[in-house]
Amino acid sequence: MKLWGHYKISWLLAVTCLLVLCGMGAVAQTQAAPAPAATAAAPPPMATDAPLDLKPAAAPSTDDLVKGDPAGTKTGTANDVVVSDTKKGMTLADLINQVGQNRIGINFTWTLITGFLVMFMQAGFAIVETGLCRAKNANHTMMMNFMVYGFGLFAFWVCGFAIQMGGGAPYATLGGASSLNAEHVVTFMGKTWGVFGTHGFFLSGISYDVGVMVLFLFQMVFMDTALTIVTGSCAERWKYVAFAISSVFMGAITYPLFANWAWGGGWLSQLGANFGLGHGYADFAGSGVVHAVGGVTALALSLIIGPRIGKFTREGKPNAIPGHDIVIVLTGCFILAFGWFGFNPGSTLAASGNGALRISSVAVNTMLAGCTGSFGAVLYMWIRYGKPDASMSGNGLLAGLVAITAPSGFVSAVSSAIIGLIAGVLVCVSVEFVDRVLKVDDPVGAISVHGANGLWGVLSVGLFADGTSNYGGSWNGVSGSVRGLFYGDASQLVAQLVGICTLVGGIFTLSYVSGWIMDLIIGQRSSAADELEGLDIPEMGALCYPEFVLKPEGLRVPAEVAAD
Amino acid sequence: MKLWGHYKISWLLAVTCLLVLCGMGAVAQTQAAPAPAATAAAPPPMATDAPLDLKPAAAPSTDDLVKGDPAGTKTGTANDVVVSDTKKGMTLADLINQVGQNRIGINFTWTLITGFLVMFMQAGFAIVETGLCRAKNANHTMMMNFMVYGFGLFAFWVCGFAIQMGGGAPYATLGGASSLNAEHVVTFMGKTWGVFGTHGFFLSGISYDVGVMVLFLFQMVFMDTALTIVTGSCAERWKYVAFAISSVFMGAITYPLFANWAWGGGWLSQLGANFGLGHGYADFAGSGVVHAVGGVTALALSLIIGPRIGKFTREGKPNAIPGHDIVIVLTGCFILAFGWFGFNPGSTLAASGNGALRISSVAVNTMLAGCTGSFGAVLYMWIRYGKPDASMSGNGLLAGLVAITAPSGFVSAVSSAIIGLIAGVLVCVSVEFVDRVLKVDDPVGAISVHGANGLWGVLSVGLFADGTSNYGGSWNGVSGSVRGLFYGDASQLVAQLVGICTLVGGIFTLSYVSGWIMDLIIGQRSSAADELEGLDIPEMGALCYPEFVLKPEGLRVPAEVAAD
Amino acid sequence: MKLWGHYKISWLLAVTCLLVLCGMGAVAQTQAAPAPAATAAAPPPMATDAPLDLKPAAAPSTDDLVKGDPAGTKTGTANDVVVSDTKKGMTLADLINQVGQNRIGINFTWTLITGFLVMFMQAGFAIVETGLCRAKNANHTMMMNFMVYGFGLFAFWVCGFAIQMGGGAPYATLGGASSLNAEHVVTFMGKTWGVFGTHGFFLSGISYDVGVMVLFLFQMVFMDTALTIVTGSCAERWKYVAFAISSVFMGAITYPLFANWAWGGGWLSQLGANFGLGHGYADFAGSGVVHAVGGVTALALSLIIGPRIGKFTREGKPNAIPGHDIVIVLTGCFILAFGWFGFNPGSTLAASGNGALRISSVAVNTMLAGCTGSFGAVLYMWIRYGKPDASMSGNGLLAGLVAITAPSGFVSAVSSAIIGLIAGVLVCVSVEFVDRVLKVDDPVGAISVHGANGLWGVLSVGLFADGTSNYGGSWNGVSGSVRGLFYGDASQLVAQLVGICTLVGGIFTLSYVSGWIMDLIIGQRSSAADELEGLDIPEMGALCYPEFVLKPEGLRVPAEVAAD
Repeated sequence: MKLWGHYKISWLLAVTCLLVLCGMGAVAQTQAAPAPAATAAAPPPMATDAPLDLKPAAAPSTDDLVKGDPAGTKTGTANDVVVSDTKKGMTLADLINQVGQNRIGINFTWTLITGFLVMFMQAGFAIVETGLCRAKNANHTMMMNFMVYGFGLFAFWVCGFAIQMGGGAPYATLGGASSLNAEHVVTFMGKTWGVFGTHGFFLSGISYDVGVMVLFLFQMVFMDTALTIVTGSCAERWKYVAFAISSVFMGAITYPLFANWAWGGGWLSQLGANFGLGHGYADFAGSGVVHAVGGVTALALSLIIGPRIGKFTREGKPNAIPGHDIVIVLTGCFILAFGWFGFNPGSTLAASGNGALRISSVAVNTMLAGCTGSFGAVLYMWIRYGKPDASMSGNGLLAGLVAITAPSGFVSAVSSAIIGLIAGVLVCVSVEFVDRVLKVDDPVGAISVHGANGLWGVLSVGLFADGTSNYGGSWNGVSGSVRGLFYGDASQLVAQLVGICTLVGGIFTLSYVSGWIMDLIIGQRSSAADELEGLDIPEMGALCYPEFVLKPEGLRVPAEVAAD
Repeated sequence: MKLWGHYKISWLLAVTCLLVLCGMGAVAQTQAAPAPAATAAAPPPMATDAPLDLKPAAAPSTDDLVKGDPAGTKTGTANDVVVSDTKKGMTLADLINQVGQNRIGINFTWTLITGFLVMFMQAGFAIVETGLCRAKNANHTMMMNFMVYGFGLFAFWVCGFAIQMGGGAPYATLGGASSLNAEHVVTFMGKTWGVFGTHGFFLSGISYDVGVMVLFLFQMVFMDTALTIVTGSCAERWKYVAFAISSVFMGAITYPLFANWAWGGGWLSQLGANFGLGHGYADFAGSGVVHAVGGVTALALSLIIGPRIGKFTREGKPNAIPGHDIVIVLTGCFILAFGWFGFNPGSTLAASGNGALRISSVAVNTMLAGCTGSFGAVLYMWIRYGKPDASMSGNGLLAGLVAITAPSGFVSAVSSAIIGLIAGVLVCVSVEFVDRVLKVDDPVGAISVHGANGLWGVLSVGLFADGTSNYGGSWNGVSGSVRGLFYGDASQLVAQLVGICTLVGGIFTLSYVSGWIMDLIIGQRSSAADELEGLDIPEMGALCYPEFVLKPEGLRVPAEVAAD
Repeated sequence: MKLWGHYKISWLLAVTCLLVLCGMGAVAQTQAAPAPAATAAAPPPMATDAPLDLKPAAAPSTDDLVKGDPAGTKTGTANDVVVSDTKKGMTLADLINQVGQNRIGINFTWTLITGFLVMFMQAGFAIVETGLCRAKNANHTMMMNFMVYGFGLFAFWVCGFAIQMGGGAPYATLGGASSLNAEHVVTFMGKTWGVFGTHGFFLSGISYDVGVMVLFLFQMVFMDTALTIVTGSCAERWKYVAFAISSVFMGAITYPLFANWAWGGGWLSQLGANFGLGHGYADFAGSGVVHAVGGVTALALSLIIGPRIGKFTREGKPNAIPGHDIVIVLTGCFILAFGWFGFNPGSTLAASGNGALRISSVAVNTMLAGCTGSFGAVLYMWIRYGKPDASMSGNGLLAGLVAITAPSGFVSAVSSAIIGLIAGVLVCVSVEFVDRVLKVDDPVGAISVHGANGLWGVLSVGLFADGTSNYGGSWNGVSGSVRGLFYGDASQLVAQLVGICTLVGGIFTLSYVSGWIMDLIIGQRSSAADELEGLDIPEMGALCYPEFVLKPEGLRVPAEVAAD
């Protein structure tokens, strides 16, 4: 064991070197990009309705094309610009329309595909959570995760989406989505503040619009991510019907409210424009909106439901209850890391124009923070307990990803690595804190992964945002780029802290009270007998693994681990 | 060993048939596509060969770029337009070509990526089907699903693709794919009707073309989806060699034929232009072409193969045979829901121009119908049997997705939710019907999910299509937008019914007869001894889970479920 | 415990080396890329600063848009072209910039999404390898695959990327990535040859650039693929700490060096321009760079580590040690086939301009070779051993995919099918050869899949490249298209052979020596007691499947298989 001491020293050295180096890197970023030169006053307009002479474009003829084009040099030419009047021929106006159509086509493609990736994260959450539970509850845990997609989507379609996004139009990168233009506002201190949106219920009427649909899809999969966090912390003892109603409530009300305030033109996003607090609450892809909302709701419901039987000894000492399948836990983490490439980079809602090429930087930041998150957790566990730990490695990766979600669009690669590394350690410490101090039972660590690190992510925007981003030249209606404390804007940090207080004060309270009322009316927790048997037969009517022989519970944990 | 003798002969026969068919196809290249109409006279054209003055574009210099561009504001400018003659500089002609290239680049990107997602559905089908089977057949079920990709693709490459798409060019959104221009036609009632295509065998010669390749990839993964449906309903008793030959036959003949009629310019798609039946048979992404073809083939082969030993009592009462792993069943459903975002939205074959921005509406419809499908099935099971059921939740999701496949491009969000909800209930009823009335054994419910709901999807186009879509202004050569009965066009419903009759009459018969002949020659069903032991060792030579202890069969089903 | 002492020292050494290397790299920024030649004089340029008359474009008004656009015909128009000076209105210069932005947006979107797919391959490798191992090592095998992502990424971010790509700018399809312009060169025979790059450490300073970030993400996921190959062949006996250090070394040094030589402007890529050997070493997507580097490293480390206890009898006869879960093996293969659609087609780094539409041909070639690979392996096993084999079917698929990786951008569909078929047979023969002749223990067949078939893929470029591709008109600075022996350019085959010799001679030696030194210092192999118990508890502290009852080892293999 003495050697661990030396080991620590070498680590300290290495980490110090790293930090020094990072610091040097941060300092070395001295040269800001020059502002684009201003253009002069305009001459009389140029006609755009004359047909264009296409001969110099030398597009291939039909006879030529029919011979096949293996190189791809005869395909995709002047022939492929859509012409409004084929008799007249292509005009400059056609060309301009096609350029606009191409831009929106790129943005749709990007936002939809990244949205699909986020939807796939549901599979990741499902198997991570199930793998971390016991086999006797595996069907139940899978089915919560499976139906959260259906229940949540339904509620969000009925009213959640309208509440969240119904007042934020126009969404320029998606061609407008212009019908989402009715935000309910209140006036306070002489300013109007958005509270919730009111267009887009059922996606019907004027919200039957291609731009609105892109936005719905992308926002819906984010909402579902928040919901699925709660199923993890309440697993192995949550009554299925209570879960179902909670999910509908959260998808219809809790999540959309906060999301409106942050992203739908609501009051948190107006803190900059109305109060001069930086650029208002800035949460690029939802460390706060998605993960911390999920995490604090998970905490509230875990408190109401109470710990699993056997989790704590009579003296309050926590027992480790290991998951039943590490393969699916880590496979799920990979799926989540894959889906996160949709989550963060897709949050630009654009890949052409508007400074949207920064998607690459967002993607790399995401990757790096996930990496240093798992790195940090592995090192923490290795140093503290003598062995790297699979569950905590996975949670470290997720913690890094959660933490970078809010700042991913505003920070550098080095900052991302630091944010992730801190997240990886934070999640380990937080899991111990929840277990030993709060004495809350969280089977999968969701409160620590999503709650603690979601808040850390929100905070880190106010520290590390470096002012290099440009998303159409402004953010939340405040021109210029988001900067944190380390780059000279302390007021941004204040805006972030207001967001954090709202999350912890408002969302926690709303979740706790609604959960408590539901507990009174229908009861949140399954019976002790069901819990001891495993919820699969009593709640779902079928075992997850009916053919496999399982060990009796007492024999599962190897002696050396049990003694830990 | 005797079987090997028969086996060899059947192989020789099959290969010979295949080659003969290919040969006939190659000879039958009868009808070339007509040249597009020449454009009429127009005002004097604008010159496009003068170099453009790029100074006002203010593109950054090399010196500037080398300093790095974190904001993405110096990247992607006038510098990045491809110039044909660098000495002369950029001309308007270059710009026009680049705009056309960009459009086709977007469409290629979209169609390829959505095609990749569809390919990934193979993984979903594999684990859904395997999870719903017993552990003793898990290797065999996985290997059917695994090799269907190889066998099907091979057959489709040799001749299936040419039969399906060889006569449908030009494909405008993909730059033409112009060499696929030879449809074999028959004349009937004074009209010519397409029967099968004849260009594109082996993707060689003039079909070595970048546009053709996109089309091949996208169509190939659809075909494979149809094949994989059959492996589910015939699981746990299908001889592997019979499966292999059936897959080749289906990939080479059955599927491509119907797909040509519906999508490749064949007679079903001409019902509108030739007979005035709406826009002809309209099947946006293949509820009929893919799922119902797979489902009716599954029914035909299930009838030939017969039920698993123990599925029905002597009195004909069905026994439930639960699957062995719910985790992989529901994970597979998630993968399928993910892949369906390729299946339906990708079927535009475009994301720029041609009204293709409706991809977002298609994606949301897909999502909503899947959601209400699982919703409907869960509610049905909960109400009828007292508990939500994992397998039926999964099947409900898939049923909703199958049903929305045909109408997804033509209907509103509300209609999609209704279509999905009906599908979710229909699949439960259909499973009971197949089990109790037809007394056909379908271990995974494929006949109900894909067959019944595939037909429901085809029908629903004729009811719910709302006339708001615009895919280049026409569909199947009939100008205007597809409308169903509820939106004023009863003739569209007739076209859909013709498609349904063709499916049930034609494809079922073809599948039944070919399957029956194959049964005579090589035998479709494994021996009773092999089936009782499990097919893994006799057919595959290895257990799926050699290290796990499994329960003896009698002990698997808990008492309360068995009594159900 | 003594080993921990060595371990500590080695850490200090490793960190020191790393830092020194980074320092040297930073200093060695010797050769800046030359500025592109200035364009020559041209006819008087056309003005582009006059505002355009947008009336003929007939873009919809705000009032119109607010009514919703279900068809997508009012969205994506002249309204959506970004205008630099809104007072003046849109100019031709704005249009030109938007066209350039669209092109780069398409290329970013394509390269990032395909990169995400490649990242997801990590999940595939993880479960393929774990499924092919025994349950007692499943946690350990998963955790190697999981952390290789973190360890490798970290090393690559610190210095690997700079070594690989730091001297290859400009990357035209990504807008330049212009800061990566410092290749360290040596002069030999009167020519300068690139050895390693020196810009891009930590992605900081001038490499904080959106183009650089795309390139980093795409190259990073390729590197990780190479690393994960080694974890397969060394599974079930590799000490975790040795694995961790090896991964860092490989990600920081071994892989980036060869990748620089082939792809980063290094000497292998210059064989054409400097020596007239075809187009220099041509490896489209890395059969050599990724797979063969991984495969020969796997061979080197397998030789050092030695076979698992029980793999060979005293007489040297190999025993089959079957994997514990076929479901995850084949699911992993599907994930890999899915990810390969990123691997190969994404390697164009473009989807618009530059002949990049050939992505479709690359994708189809990939699909076909994978198909014929599994086909070939199944037929080989069926004929030779009487049954198709699940593991070898999977390995056949992967072998086909590995082999087509290098030629995928240069060959026809028919050639791809042939290359894949040969690969499918080759992998079976190679597995037998490694087992029976080399007597090297490779639990998952990684040496055969990636090593043997990686080299076959590199070779096949020199045979089958057909001269139809056009990637901007040149490859590796040699104008014209890559052709192999069968299409008239024998010198290309020589270039490929030089690459193969470098791989086998150079990379194998580097890997072997570094692995051997590490073995001396910290020891590569876990103790015999740990290995017999299974590495999960001793190395990871937890079982993978703590609740499932496993068979004692002697009872696992059914008699008929054991006798094989």
